[in-house]
Amino acid sequence: MQTTSELMACNPFLSYRISISFSSLCKTLSPLLRTSISFPTRSPQFNPIRFHSRSMMANSFSWDDVFRISQADNDLDDSSDLQGFFERVKACNRGCEKKSEFIPFVIEQQIVGYIHNRFANHLREFHNVFDFLEDKSYSSHFGGYITLNPSLKSSEDRTEAVADVINCLGGLIPGTRNELYPVTSSFGKPEFFSLERAAAPYFGIKVYGIHMNGYVNKDGNKFLWIGKRSEVKPTFPGMLDHLVAGGLPHGITCKENILKECEEEAGLPRSISNRAVPVGVVSYMDINGYSFKRDVLFCYDLELPDEFIPTNQDGEVESFKLVPVTHVMNIIRRVEFFKPNCSLVITDFLFRHGYISPENDGYLQLLQSLRSGDCS
Amino acid sequence: MQTTSELMACNPFLSYRISISFSSLCKTLSPLLRTSISFPTRSPQFNPIRFHSRSMMANSFSWDDVFRISQADNDLDDSSDLQGFFERVKACNRGCEKKSEFIPFVIEQQIVGYIHNRFANHLREFHNVFDFLEDKSYSSHFGGYITLNPSLKSSEDRTEAVADVINCLGGLIPGTRNELYPVTSSFGKPEFFSLERAAAPYFGIKVYGIHMNGYVNKDGNKFLWIGKRSEVKPTFPGMLDHLVAGGLPHGITCKENILKECEEEAGLPRSISNRAVPVGVVSYMDINGYSFKRDVLFCYDLELPDEFIPTNQDGEVESFKLVPVTHVMNIIRRVEFFKPNCSLVITDFLFRHGYISPENDGYLQLLQSLRSGDCS
Repeated sequence: MQTTSELMACNPFLSYRISISFSSLCKTLSPLLRTSISFPTRSPQFNPIRFHSRSMMANSFSWDDVFRISQADNDLDDSSDLQGFFERVKACNRGCEKKSEFIPFVIEQQIVGYIHNRFANHLREFHNVFDFLEDKSYSSHFGGYITLNPSLKSSEDRTEAVADVINCLGGLIPGTRNELYPVTSSFGKPEFFSLERAAAPYFGIKVYGIHMNGYVNKDGNKFLWIGKRSEVKPTFPGMLDHLVAGGLPHGITCKENILKECEEEAGLPRSISNRAVPVGVVSYMDINGYSFKRDVLFCYDLELPDEFIPTNQDGEVESFKLVPVTHVMNIIRRVEFFKPNCSLVITDFLFRHGYISPENDGYLQLLQSLRSGDCS
Repeated sequence: MQTTSELMACNPFLSYRISISFSSLCKTLSPLLRTSISFPTRSPQFNPIRFHSRSMMANSFSWDDVFRISQADNDLDDSSDLQGFFERVKACNRGCEKKSEFIPFVIEQQIVGYIHNRFANHLREFHNVFDFLEDKSYSSHFGGYITLNPSLKSSEDRTEAVADVINCLGGLIPGTRNELYPVTSSFGKPEFFSLERAAAPYFGIKVYGIHMNGYVNKDGNKFLWIGKRSEVKPTFPGMLDHLVAGGLPHGITCKENILKECEEEAGLPRSISNRAVPVGVVSYMDINGYSFKRDVLFCYDLELPDEFIPTNQDGEVESFKLVPVTHVMNIIRRVEFFKPNCSLVITDFLFRHGYISPENDGYLQLLQSLRSGDCS
């Protein structure tokens, strides 16, 4: 029997939704009730945007809410203030002070992940798969590390053995997708084995993804295509998203993945999607309960023809809207409507396209914060 | 009387030019004679570009040399290889292992710079200006730090007192320009005082600059305007440069500085230059002898009309040429013709415009290396 806090710890999404609702609730009540968070720039000002509290508390909002928020403007809301962006970055980079609760997961003398000490206890009984070794080489708070049993020599053997353990653990690792992620020391290096996507944060492996901003340039004014995720998606239902995004599974290059996802998520033909431009990366390090996300997102820009209208093919997106970049900027600054990591990728777009400039207080600090995770 | 090595140590430019000549010489001789440098990607391959050795040894080259290098292509020269880019980054980030030879320079409890222990000895006699304190708070290898005498309270007093010392030191700090740089803990923070530009690396203060890539887009093919520095410029004469670049002096914003430099360096009217887009930063940390450069460069892109021809106004640029980006890429990869920090800014451009992609081995590592310095 798990306690409520353990349940929350094991389900990052559950606690994420609770925290969003709480923070949204605070915004609708009073600045005095807002949680105390220390930010790198000046103290937060109360942003008196009027909002229908029920929809915020239920963490569900309509496109009408989005448009109202994106356009609202008033004297107290300084558009050069980067405060809201820092808050979004913070939401992606929780709990770095809790890194000491994790034990290094080592394969062939290289750290490939981090496993929470209490989650690790569930792995101890699988003697044929995991070894717990006492050796301080990997500067663990616990004086040791976890590795795979030396009998598991090939990538295939390791993949199969760990998959069996994950199946045995059942509800401890929810949301199995039968999608395999590569386990490596760094990007492009040989894969030690492949791991079920849903298990990645429980083993703290680095996960790579591709995120694409699709934009239209009309007479020098740029617009972004924004998706609203399906309400029945298991993760971040109803939240705002890029035109196209996805994890980078085992055995596919970023370029191939972009082309595939463009087709599935936005109905983009290859004649257009092959113009997608790789423009850099963002990264974050998010600890929440047993989950240690170490994500590196390859960012792409795609300038789209005026006449193109995206159409979702796989049921994961409810609808798309074309929104002026300045309005998207307001949404990110003011509310938590975007799937958290999309805020980072759009903020990177804002930097590269000159919407945030060195004259903004905190420019360098915000730019640096977009790569807070191990970017290798 | 200074020894040759001390002279080299005190003159970063001198030793820089010698190292360029040596490395260029090696390239013209044999791969076996090249200096042994460990790079993060695969071992360097010999790049058999034919070259007139005398011009390389004299570190002087013509536009004809530039064009020949930029176009040369052969089977041994893999265009996806990032090796040459890593070498250019390395040339901007020398000697980080020598940081322990420097003593922290502290003002109002904040580290603003680093001073070489032997250079510091020259400051000891100026009791009314510098204090040498024994306190391990700033984790100095020497167990202490250097600060300004507490009698110097105002920014003006400090600026004047330090300027007097620099004048007294004479040839120890060559190339005085009568241009003042702000001394701060980080960008946008209040200035403690202002320091002569030529003295900045001797005090290891952070220096900010603006660098602008001016490009033309012809039917989807991009071209960069490249300048060749005047042969009589005191620093990096005859080397390749951006369309516009400059240090960020005391009391001027990045935006104002870009407009000013655009006019002086390229004859760009404000009607065009005000379209310059801030796109991010690069940084490096370069130790050479007494010099500790901690530079942060704000990068700008400016898309120019086809018909615009830059004309230098201040005599600092010999001539400009419009070069296809793919050819500029070859110049950077293959030779050290660009002023070193320009290579970083152009490499950043190559990342943001998709000329370097995640499929290139070392993508993440090279991208990270563009901000090797303290970016605050």
